[in-house]
Amino acid sequence: MAGNELQQYRKELDKLNMELLELINKRASLVQEIGKIKEKQGIKKFDPVRERKMLDTITKQNNGPFENATIEHIFKEIFKASLELQEVNQQKALLV
Amino acid sequence: MAGNELQQYRKELDKLNMELLELINKRASLVQEIGKIKEKQGIKKFDPVRERKMLDTITKQNNGPFENATIEHIFKEIFKASLELQEVNQQKALLV
Repeated sequence: MAGNELQQYRKELDKLNMELLELINKRASLVQEIGKIKEKQGIKKFDPVRERKMLDTITKQNNGPFENATIEHIFKEIFKASLELQEVNQQKALLV
Repeated sequence: MAGNELQQYRKELDKLNMELLELINKRASLVQEIGKIKEKQGIKKFDPVRERKMLDTITKQNNGPFENATIEHIFKEIFKASLELQEVNQQKALLV
């Protein structure tokens, strides 16, 4: 019985992983688009004020179970990866 | 015109952040439930084989723009935080 329950939960977890993957990549594509606009306007990609604001908005809406510090940590990793992606794109554009 | 476009994209980004927050916490709740079952069955919380399998399934479905290595890195952070959450819950249970 408990074995089935565990299997059921794991199935749900696999489904959630796929949804997360899709959303993380959707966010990355959007950040790429934002990067292109910033590029055209000559605005710096890294905007710590905007980043801090986003984190504050996110943690304000956080109802757990993850603590705010954990949520911040995960989102900071996503932000960092997104910035790196913008920079790779920029370098590729410069090489063309 | 480009300013409006940037604002529009940022609005979408804020919405995606909220969806991500919700999904990350939903996943954490599910992992907590799995932890309780494992606890009852005396199964170890950390299962590197299952974790590796999940990462493989995830990267197999990855269509970018994030590279597989980046996706793995982000998910590993989520896994680690989830494991820590299970351990905190267990300690709380032991203190009751």
